[in-house]
Amino acid sequence: MINKLVEKIKKTEAPIVVGLDPMLGYIPGHITDAAYKEYGMNLDGAAKAVWQYNKGIVDAVCDLIPAVKPQIAMYEQFGIPGLAAFKQTVDYCKEKGLVVIGDIKRGDIGSTSAAYAAAHIGKVDIGGSYFRGFDEDFITVNPYLGTDGIKPFADVCKEEKRGMFILVKTSNPSSGEFQDRLIDGKPLYEHVASKVAEWGKDVMGKDYSYIGAVVGATYPEMGKVLRKIMPQSYILVPGYGAQGGKGKDLVHFFNNDGLGAIVNSSRGIIAAYKQDKYSAFGPEGYADAARQAVLDMKEDLKQALERV
Amino acid sequence: MINKLVEKIKKTEAPIVVGLDPMLGYIPGHITDAAYKEYGMNLDGAAKAVWQYNKGIVDAVCDLIPAVKPQIAMYEQFGIPGLAAFKQTVDYCKEKGLVVIGDIKRGDIGSTSAAYAAAHIGKVDIGGSYFRGFDEDFITVNPYLGTDGIKPFADVCKEEKRGMFILVKTSNPSSGEFQDRLIDGKPLYEHVASKVAEWGKDVMGKDYSYIGAVVGATYPEMGKVLRKIMPQSYILVPGYGAQGGKGKDLVHFFNNDGLGAIVNSSRGIIAAYKQDKYSAFGPEGYADAARQAVLDMKEDLKQALERV
Repeated sequence: MINKLVEKIKKTEAPIVVGLDPMLGYIPGHITDAAYKEYGMNLDGAAKAVWQYNKGIVDAVCDLIPAVKPQIAMYEQFGIPGLAAFKQTVDYCKEKGLVVIGDIKRGDIGSTSAAYAAAHIGKVDIGGSYFRGFDEDFITVNPYLGTDGIKPFADVCKEEKRGMFILVKTSNPSSGEFQDRLIDGKPLYEHVASKVAEWGKDVMGKDYSYIGAVVGATYPEMGKVLRKIMPQSYILVPGYGAQGGKGKDLVHFFNNDGLGAIVNSSRGIIAAYKQDKYSAFGPEGYADAARQAVLDMKEDLKQALERV
Repeated sequence: MINKLVEKIKKTEAPIVVGLDPMLGYIPGHITDAAYKEYGMNLDGAAKAVWQYNKGIVDAVCDLIPAVKPQIAMYEQFGIPGLAAFKQTVDYCKEKGLVVIGDIKRGDIGSTSAAYAAAHIGKVDIGGSYFRGFDEDFITVNPYLGTDGIKPFADVCKEEKRGMFILVKTSNPSSGEFQDRLIDGKPLYEHVASKVAEWGKDVMGKDYSYIGAVVGATYPEMGKVLRKIMPQSYILVPGYGAQGGKGKDLVHFFNNDGLGAIVNSSRGIIAAYKQDKYSAFGPEGYADAARQAVLDMKEDLKQALERV
């Protein structure tokens, strides 16, 4: 699946992943109104609105990008109907040929990590037959519990040829509270990165490992160092756009061949119609606004990478 | 809710939480057979078997214990039907008067953490009405992302008078890889514990904070230190029984009044009938075996605490 991701990035010339993180406040009124009318102003109606909103965006951008990253929390808040909308979104994006990165940030130990892995990138054995609960291509994973927590995910990655991105340095302001603390002269995130490189060696695709890393766009200097520590790990870079990262800040996350990183933008794309820049599209044109925002992001990244 | 937990611990004289972590392999054949026959040998049938199994255990032990801790991964692996069984289990345990700790180990930043908090211990606003996706009393949370990740959960704890247990030192063998590394002469888990104490001050119940900590039973010496760093945080202690912890190892997790900690046992209780010690109960008597295992655990802890 890492090979497919790399191929699709080359083909689309867009190292971009669109974050499908639908807040209710982003969804145009005509969509929520219709969903509430048909399903009620409740968890079910909200979940159906989320799905309709997503479908519009995916239809509008799927030929431009290699991958999407639905953030499961935004679905989980609507309970069972919300998680059904998550599943529907994942399945639909895969039908459309997109690589799906489930942003689930799970992490536990032993049989519990194995259960999460089975849920999202693997399968469960029920009386000798196998079933998939959810069906993402990649997931994000939290490393705080160490190798015991990662190994069960890595085993499933290997078996299924699917992958994961492990949190190394997150994009938020307080990520430094623990992640930046010095241990033997090096920040914790570098120690985690070294482990990511080590874990990843055992689960290699063609040029890159099935095990990648999450490093926030908001810390470009750290991206430079981390790129070197994990040469064969793809870096998933959140924090572009709305969180403040720009194309020019991101060049160090990439290798010289323009590969090695994939940059996420969520509300900068899916709620583009709310920005002054794209306001002419209006709420009815939210999907076209998202398409234009993807094209603009692609150009921003292209120019930044050409300048290197 | 922390006040209710403390009261129930006093009343039951059992600082015990039963982990409802149902692996399919634990569930007696008569339950899985019946569920597969009625719902099919698929995700739905497996989820229904999980629910029936849980119900039997909860009915058998609910008068003896203050709380249960369903591990969501074990449900998530069965997809949407599995998560519906999680919700059904949570709701049923609350009906039975039990405090429910959702072992979800979520953790993200900003609006994403807020969405997880809304999903599990809060509510979502849909057109001005409020709905609960899931409905636990406490959850477990991962601290790797720092204060930005914790604050949205803490805000919901305060508003809802519900709580969370933050991972400090986990029970697994490799937990030391990152958690034990020295920063300014102190292991990372102590730094996390100091933050837990700080975060918890702002969200106090009567004697204890709504914000507690997870510290593995397998590290009793660390429990002693951590008890002092977080005097007002309840400590949730996994790793008793099957993972090797014994009552006598756990005395340091408690305060002098016998409060301040709650010890989890999962398969040691719910799959007790598979142990030689309880084999006379047989698979049909799995719930009675669980009850006996709770009584034995209660006695083990009582003797350990009396010996102090």
